[in-house]
Amino acid sequence: MAKKDVSAQALALHKKLGGKIRIEPAAKVTSREDMTLVYTPGVAAVSSHLAKRPGDSRDYTIKGRMILVVSDGSAVLGLGNIGPYGALPVMEGKCVLFKTFANVDAFPLVLDTHEVNKIVETIAHVAPAFGGINLEDIKAPQCFEIEAKLQERLDIPVIHDDQHGTAIAVLAALINAAKVVKKDLKKLKVVVSGAGAAGTAITKLLLKAGIKDCIVLDREGIIDASRDEHHKKELALATNPRDVMGTLSDALQGADALIGVSGPGLATAEDIKRMAQGAIVFAMANPTPEITPEEAKAGGAAIIGTGRSDYPNQINNSLVFPGLFLGVLNNQVRQVTEDMKLQAAKNLAAIVKKPAAQKIIPGPFERGIAQAVAKAIR
Amino acid sequence: MAKKDVSAQALALHKKLGGKIRIEPAAKVTSREDMTLVYTPGVAAVSSHLAKRPGDSRDYTIKGRMILVVSDGSAVLGLGNIGPYGALPVMEGKCVLFKTFANVDAFPLVLDTHEVNKIVETIAHVAPAFGGINLEDIKAPQCFEIEAKLQERLDIPVIHDDQHGTAIAVLAALINAAKVVKKDLKKLKVVVSGAGAAGTAITKLLLKAGIKDCIVLDREGIIDASRDEHHKKELALATNPRDVMGTLSDALQGADALIGVSGPGLATAEDIKRMAQGAIVFAMANPTPEITPEEAKAGGAAIIGTGRSDYPNQINNSLVFPGLFLGVLNNQVRQVTEDMKLQAAKNLAAIVKKPAAQKIIPGPFERGIAQAVAKAIR
Repeated sequence: MAKKDVSAQALALHKKLGGKIRIEPAAKVTSREDMTLVYTPGVAAVSSHLAKRPGDSRDYTIKGRMILVVSDGSAVLGLGNIGPYGALPVMEGKCVLFKTFANVDAFPLVLDTHEVNKIVETIAHVAPAFGGINLEDIKAPQCFEIEAKLQERLDIPVIHDDQHGTAIAVLAALINAAKVVKKDLKKLKVVVSGAGAAGTAITKLLLKAGIKDCIVLDREGIIDASRDEHHKKELALATNPRDVMGTLSDALQGADALIGVSGPGLATAEDIKRMAQGAIVFAMANPTPEITPEEAKAGGAAIIGTGRSDYPNQINNSLVFPGLFLGVLNNQVRQVTEDMKLQAAKNLAAIVKKPAAQKIIPGPFERGIAQAVAKAIR
Repeated sequence: MAKKDVSAQALALHKKLGGKIRIEPAAKVTSREDMTLVYTPGVAAVSSHLAKRPGDSRDYTIKGRMILVVSDGSAVLGLGNIGPYGALPVMEGKCVLFKTFANVDAFPLVLDTHEVNKIVETIAHVAPAFGGINLEDIKAPQCFEIEAKLQERLDIPVIHDDQHGTAIAVLAALINAAKVVKKDLKKLKVVVSGAGAAGTAITKLLLKAGIKDCIVLDREGIIDASRDEHHKKELALATNPRDVMGTLSDALQGADALIGVSGPGLATAEDIKRMAQGAIVFAMANPTPEITPEEAKAGGAAIIGTGRSDYPNQINNSLVFPGLFLGVLNNQVRQVTEDMKLQAAKNLAAIVKKPAAQKIIPGPFERGIAQAVAKAIR
């Protein structure tokens, strides 16, 4: 479909549906006896029980199965800060995918504030009804502080999916791409273009996977420890062991992989030509990638992935978040650790039995994806 | 069913269900094309549209159909302050009834704070996804301030159902009861036992309906303007035109109706004998009423209603809230006024074609209740 057609169709579909999720009772109520059990007076026994033993809420209420998907609308898709109403259709869409891909119930909330402390307070106050919290489309660097503060305060996992869902999907794709080009994952020289939410989490997970030579760039070039932002300073200290300086072109000299989570048109075929043999290029800016697959190929890339569904190797966090939270609910973990994320990436990669240049990551409708990812969360 | 059986059955049912509501996608997603419309990139067109025109959210998102049911767990059923986890099964039950009786989607949130300002801030921050807010089981006097502050701040109706749902159901029952005993509604002498959330709202709606002789009591007796609490002082100034002083027994002398929203066993057959001929007794404390229907009858009551499903004339706010919020959504009102509540009570009363002593209010499963109530909200 052409872009214009997709937009028109999406608008028409949303207007027809009037919201993409519905609430369904888990039990039919057709008599006074039913009401007596589901509502008063019977429900009082359940309420009294949970007042004494709140830990049993996972067994008796939606807390055992319900995920909160929440955004302040400050970094929605590639659209930037478009506020809560702009964010709501995206959050509803995520809830649809949660159910579709993992049979997980998820509800969307959008917040009318961008202040870190107000976001933290609000989410903490509504947390009792949920088994996990999916932060979504919150801009950097606020997203780091919000996630950390909430995770410290709550006894359920708090996961900013733009960071960790993306990081897990990228690492899974990179694991398989390394196999295809017959290189050792840990010895790859990787360039990450973008030091926002996704770029930061991707880099951390690559380091966790044992990759030692990462270089991270933002709009100003290769980041170093002189940067003001705390998360960039921290990243700079953990990366760039060869102390490369300069631009993306400088960073790509002899690199094995380029991971773009930045913006459209940042790289050229000439840049790709500077990379090592068997170059891996993940150009994930959406909808317009850092470099088109055609141009990356012209530059000699051996493996190309994007965030788009109309090219092979779509690297998308929708492969991850349904299974990630399914695992959270199944195993009642209090926090998702870096070890679990690493294992999730390995499990996701392993679904592709025979990785090939055009097939380093499963498609969203392949079977067993959510279950494989969920197994890592324990 | 005996009480013990009901409790055991309710616990077993809740454990089996593991939460009483589920999320269902409004549209099936079975292909990449579906994903393209429901999620990225198609959804970006909807997000961009709503960022520019947030008022269209009712047409394109769940805001047009979703009600928030929210409690801090400070006054749950007759159980008092049992906190968010104790409250959650009740809120889920309400959401089930919303769907069952009015096909309205409603989602439960329970808050881990009892501070008025934190409750107001939290609810205001999550409001964008909803078309109306049902406050529930929040104790007096905090409930009055929370409702008023939120209603002033938000452009969607904020209704504390323990107040207004109950008041509308009581007035509807009283309208029909007056017909049965052939008295003029406006000339009734009414005694309201209980000056909490329900008692306050009931009294205000009775005054709005034109009833001039109301006496309100709390645990200390008939309230007067010397009371410290603002809402009781205000009530006292608007009621008790004959300046009666003393206890419930004193208030009932010559009264036409007793409305109990207080606690078990506060009245005796002897008290009812002091009332006028054709006495109307609504003993609504749950599960144990202010006076048993048997004892009220022994005292000469002509019409008896309770909050229980095992006696005739169950006066319950589940007759009201589904239709009330259906009307809120259908007509996109910004606030539910006293005039609308009065009309809702009249519409609810009119469903009973031939009121009789054992039939002054419809049963919950009779047809057309929600639609009749909804028509009043415009």
